[in-house]
Amino acid sequence: MTESAFSLHPRLAADTLPIGDLALCQVMLMNDARFPWIILVPRRPDLREIIDLAPEDQATLLAEITAVSRVLKRLIEPQKLNVAAIGNVVAQLHIHVVARFEDDGAWPAPVWGHGAREPYDDNESSGFVALLRRELGHL
Amino acid sequence: MTESAFSLHPRLAADTLPIGDLALCQVMLMNDARFPWIILVPRRPDLREIIDLAPEDQATLLAEITAVSRVLKRLIEPQKLNVAAIGNVVAQLHIHVVARFEDDGAWPAPVWGHGAREPYDDNESSGFVALLRRELGHL
Repeated sequence: MTESAFSLHPRLAADTLPIGDLALCQVMLMNDARFPWIILVPRRPDLREIIDLAPEDQATLLAEITAVSRVLKRLIEPQKLNVAAIGNVVAQLHIHVVARFEDDGAWPAPVWGHGAREPYDDNESSGFVALLRRELGHL
Repeated sequence: MTESAFSLHPRLAADTLPIGDLALCQVMLMNDARFPWIILVPRRPDLREIIDLAPEDQATLLAEITAVSRVLKRLIEPQKLNVAAIGNVVAQLHIHVVARFEDDGAWPAPVWGHGAREPYDDNESSGFVALLRRELGHL
């Protein structure tokens, strides 16, 4: 018998840059320079919905969404945060935390499905990832 | 001196049908027959973001999102739930819980900003609202 183990969906891996692990979630930066956009993926197998998480994991997820939201708010000072679990394309449970601005090119529409991703250049992403790592603690 | 009080944003009131109040949130059905779509609005003044809520209110919000998600899952059996706090158009904090299907006309795109709302006819909405009231307990 094999036990089901967590593994990150390849599409999520391909579209993001790794930041690190919080207690529950793998944290990634969406590789899209148009929007400051973090993805949280609970490291539990076979999750599709927030309600699939055990109650204690739900509470941890909320704490980690809050931590990431606060870091984005402090660093980026967005006009609005967009927080969402959608998963219509990649069903593996993942939470988007996106810092939004009225001049960000998609506003007021959501970012999901808006045009094509514009990958960061390496210097830009490595600086941002390093900053997020430091702000999120010792990832 | 006047104390700031909660009041529902007129745009949210205009676009929805009232279901009732949970401990924290006012619960409404989005008046859009294309998607089974519930809106939760914490009855606290001056909220824009989930992180503006006190920690105990955040926990209650999560419990209420979970309750609404479970009811939609049981009643509607969607392929996916979409849960989101966006607020780019109406900044008052409100959470969307939407039951999604692969043949729902917007799939896999999000519902926000997708075409025009199609109001329920009265019989249809009153039956659905009554069912949701019963399932969510004594609202």
